[in-house]
Amino acid sequence: MKKYRVLIDCRDEKGLVYKVSSIFFRHDLNILSNSEFVDADRSLFFMRSVVEGTVDGGELEKELRSVLPKEAAIRIVAPEKKNIVLMATKESHALGDILIRYEAGELDANILGVVSNYDLLQPLVEKFGIPYFTVSHEGLSRQEHEAKVMECLAALGEIDYVVLAKYMRILTPHFVEAYENRIINIHHSFLPAFIGANPYKQAYERGVKIIGATAHFVNNDLDEGPIIAQDVKHVDHAYNWQALQRLGRDIEKIVLSRALKLALEDRIFVYGNKTVIF
Amino acid sequence: MKKYRVLIDCRDEKGLVYKVSSIFFRHDLNILSNSEFVDADRSLFFMRSVVEGTVDGGELEKELRSVLPKEAAIRIVAPEKKNIVLMATKESHALGDILIRYEAGELDANILGVVSNYDLLQPLVEKFGIPYFTVSHEGLSRQEHEAKVMECLAALGEIDYVVLAKYMRILTPHFVEAYENRIINIHHSFLPAFIGANPYKQAYERGVKIIGATAHFVNNDLDEGPIIAQDVKHVDHAYNWQALQRLGRDIEKIVLSRALKLALEDRIFVYGNKTVIF
Amino acid sequence: MKKYRVLIDCRDEKGLVYKVSSIFFRHDLNILSNSEFVDADRSLFFMRSVVEGTVDGGELEKELRSVLPKEAAIRIVAPEKKNIVLMATKESHALGDILIRYEAGELDANILGVVSNYDLLQPLVEKFGIPYFTVSHEGLSRQEHEAKVMECLAALGEIDYVVLAKYMRILTPHFVEAYENRIINIHHSFLPAFIGANPYKQAYERGVKIIGATAHFVNNDLDEGPIIAQDVKHVDHAYNWQALQRLGRDIEKIVLSRALKLALEDRIFVYGNKTVIF
Amino acid sequence: MKKYRVLIDCRDEKGLVYKVSSIFFRHDLNILSNSEFVDADRSLFFMRSVVEGTVDGGELEKELRSVLPKEAAIRIVAPEKKNIVLMATKESHALGDILIRYEAGELDANILGVVSNYDLLQPLVEKFGIPYFTVSHEGLSRQEHEAKVMECLAALGEIDYVVLAKYMRILTPHFVEAYENRIINIHHSFLPAFIGANPYKQAYERGVKIIGATAHFVNNDLDEGPIIAQDVKHVDHAYNWQALQRLGRDIEKIVLSRALKLALEDRIFVYGNKTVIF
Repeated sequence: MKKYRVLIDCRDEKGLVYKVSSIFFRHDLNILSNSEFVDADRSLFFMRSVVEGTVDGGELEKELRSVLPKEAAIRIVAPEKKNIVLMATKESHALGDILIRYEAGELDANILGVVSNYDLLQPLVEKFGIPYFTVSHEGLSRQEHEAKVMECLAALGEIDYVVLAKYMRILTPHFVEAYENRIINIHHSFLPAFIGANPYKQAYERGVKIIGATAHFVNNDLDEGPIIAQDVKHVDHAYNWQALQRLGRDIEKIVLSRALKLALEDRIFVYGNKTVIF
Repeated sequence: MKKYRVLIDCRDEKGLVYKVSSIFFRHDLNILSNSEFVDADRSLFFMRSVVEGTVDGGELEKELRSVLPKEAAIRIVAPEKKNIVLMATKESHALGDILIRYEAGELDANILGVVSNYDLLQPLVEKFGIPYFTVSHEGLSRQEHEAKVMECLAALGEIDYVVLAKYMRILTPHFVEAYENRIINIHHSFLPAFIGANPYKQAYERGVKIIGATAHFVNNDLDEGPIIAQDVKHVDHAYNWQALQRLGRDIEKIVLSRALKLALEDRIFVYGNKTVIF
Repeated sequence: MKKYRVLIDCRDEKGLVYKVSSIFFRHDLNILSNSEFVDADRSLFFMRSVVEGTVDGGELEKELRSVLPKEAAIRIVAPEKKNIVLMATKESHALGDILIRYEAGELDANILGVVSNYDLLQPLVEKFGIPYFTVSHEGLSRQEHEAKVMECLAALGEIDYVVLAKYMRILTPHFVEAYENRIINIHHSFLPAFIGANPYKQAYERGVKIIGATAHFVNNDLDEGPIIAQDVKHVDHAYNWQALQRLGRDIEKIVLSRALKLALEDRIFVYGNKTVIF
Repeated sequence: MKKYRVLIDCRDEKGLVYKVSSIFFRHDLNILSNSEFVDADRSLFFMRSVVEGTVDGGELEKELRSVLPKEAAIRIVAPEKKNIVLMATKESHALGDILIRYEAGELDANILGVVSNYDLLQPLVEKFGIPYFTVSHEGLSRQEHEAKVMECLAALGEIDYVVLAKYMRILTPHFVEAYENRIINIHHSFLPAFIGANPYKQAYERGVKIIGATAHFVNNDLDEGPIIAQDVKHVDHAYNWQALQRLGRDIEKIVLSRALKLALEDRIFVYGNKTVIF
């Protein structure tokens, strides 16, 4: 018995659920869970099924393709550990949260390595037996530095997701395209508010009564892209910006880890600048 | 073109989605939304589809019944206004919230009347042109009083839901059975905590840092039954029990109105002491 | 025995608490509650005390003034009903929430009237015996319309707070200055995000996973000004913008009512573009 | 210049703020922050001031004692690292969260050691250079085991707080008295609901729509005692109990770390079965 996650997105039309489920039925597949969503405005159909049976994944995909609209995106994924690389700068909270989960066997992932532009987090990372790569940006142009980072990533092998666990450098479009919809960032704010530097100071100056954090895929720059998860906490005037930041870090790490988990379980569809999450 | 909400629950078996969707397909029904859930522990299948087409509802039900397990519960509902009765005692916040939504045309419901054991809320209710029935419990046994209430309800015609908007009397099993899974109560606490009288005082004495409210179907008594919706707010030591109650009322009314809306949209399945909500 | 709320803000210096409390002590005033805050960055001191005793308010203020920094803002307020005017346009949820609280005797306020640029909400408001004034903007310039509104307000007598319960017109600086820090608005979004028209549509397009609402004092325009209260709810891809709006309204009305309550209890200090709330 | 946290609780009477602040003033102490609370029901006064100046702590306490009610509890604390011991069983999430914060220098504490009844977490703890003590309960009575644990703790020196980071053994009254109001526990549920074993399974069976966690001081048993902090998350029917547990762990660790931080900053007063937290 094999288990597959079947992910389909295509333009909506009548009979899609019937067509897909009839193939599952014909192959005697057991549907363990099934989620669908239709974006009526754009007439788009999304479906994620977890099925169990004896059919071959390639065969299943071929059959699905034969009944679905021509341009349908079909992913058939066997649930297995994905390869991820973490990137960080100086702060340890988001990185540490992932490391503790990793150590506990909670993540369906192999962490191939941690890449940083500083060596500050090396002692922490190496405690967990994970390779650490310092790629300093000192004296390099953005392009030069990024080329070195990409070289470093390339040497680590096939990467499913790059997780920016408080990596504070801006990525160029070149990098982003190379890992399209596979770079997960934690934004230290409640997007779309307070884009840019020191959002906690911005939030403090603005006197907000709530702060938050946003995990999202990176498209063009660090502060945009399809949102995966968000959370917030209430605050009051007694929080100075350092206190906001301390509280914000607790939100950031939980939200990033949640987004990573959703990605590892193939629960996210990206379309436009949005996500569907099952 | 007719629109139907199709609700199915039955024991889980292979091919259910296929069988149901093939009937939808054969009748050229458009699936506007579709939700499924399998409770793997108990091997139960739940499905709610909103479909659009020209088929007759009775015909559709007959066909579904022919392919589904024998004991399957099948509901085919045309989205139309449901008949509800509100019951209250002295507090106006939950009742008032429903009245304002009603006035704004926000509720898919006809309010047949408001029944109370006091006449205190009569002026408020009659502002909205809704009949108000005072059924005093003075000098009556619980059974005698309830018999009068039930008489009053019976005279109002077919009732889809009885909404206890802070009705502070305990209902007997006789009443509850007469409206099984159709009585929605707002519990002035975060169930299962603080069952019984003055939960805000209990919460205050216990020094909780969060308070909440729970909307649920009534089964045996006011404080139990399948939970529909819950919400909470953070509090601190500076809230005395009156302040807890004031804040609690804001939670109560929103949670009750949300639960009512879910019921009016036929989004709730009840099984065991739980709900599935799509 | 008289009760006073004593509100002080001034630049911070050593001994302020001592100086104030010694005056309270000398007059044999009982401190029922006492809150202080120092904004260390700007060196500002805020204090709100509720005291009880036999001293005269004017006398108390004079003595406080004699020991506090010269430019200190001192307010001595006897807790009594404040006069408020509500302004609305077409939506009834925020207005209705205030009316229900008013009817229940929950608000320490007299509602002098409701002013709207449409007559749509007149039937609702008049149920509660509150004067309703339609001041149509049809065929008028912004200045002309606002002049009529201000005339209408002036005729209602002394106004402590103007509450914009979904009043969808932009106010001119002239209006705002006339009621400085006394106009409370509910912004249909989680400020500082989504300023401007139809924020729920903006939020939907952006694919946010949380929506919120912000109550704030109005300074220059509808979308800015010191934040008083905020709240949020989690959403997912299945919310279209109408569903976001429906949920948003529940947040809006509770947040606006909470902000109004804080104002009526003299709990808010405004400084810069921020608030201190005790 | 020295900095002190001054914590006072006593029965309420007129002039307390005046008396305390006059002593601060006489010693030319700068008040950096000041919080007061009166529990009017029980007539109790609580005050926490952070002051800066040149006076000696002992001197300050003596003077305060001379003006405050005889039975007043007065604590004058210089902000310095406290000594803590962590106790755990098999789960690493709460423990790991504290270790990562410790490594980042975020905690004002020395972790003297980690005590567990299993050796499972030893590799994790030792990565951080912290002594790990396995005190197995195998073949021992509760009293015998606890005696060994207490011996182990005694050998570690002066302990300010014992943090139960998912320590799953019940403590005897003897242990609890030895560390009165100094044992912080994280309860894997939203107290007072679901006391006892596997609360997530209980929560699942009950069909709750919200789960939570509670950090509290331990008094008589693991599941009671004054609440320090609580938090919750929304869930739905699709969460089986394992999923509830996974989400619950994220809440647990953040709430426990927050409670620990409050304790380390001397922000908590305990009275009755409640806390005042400034």
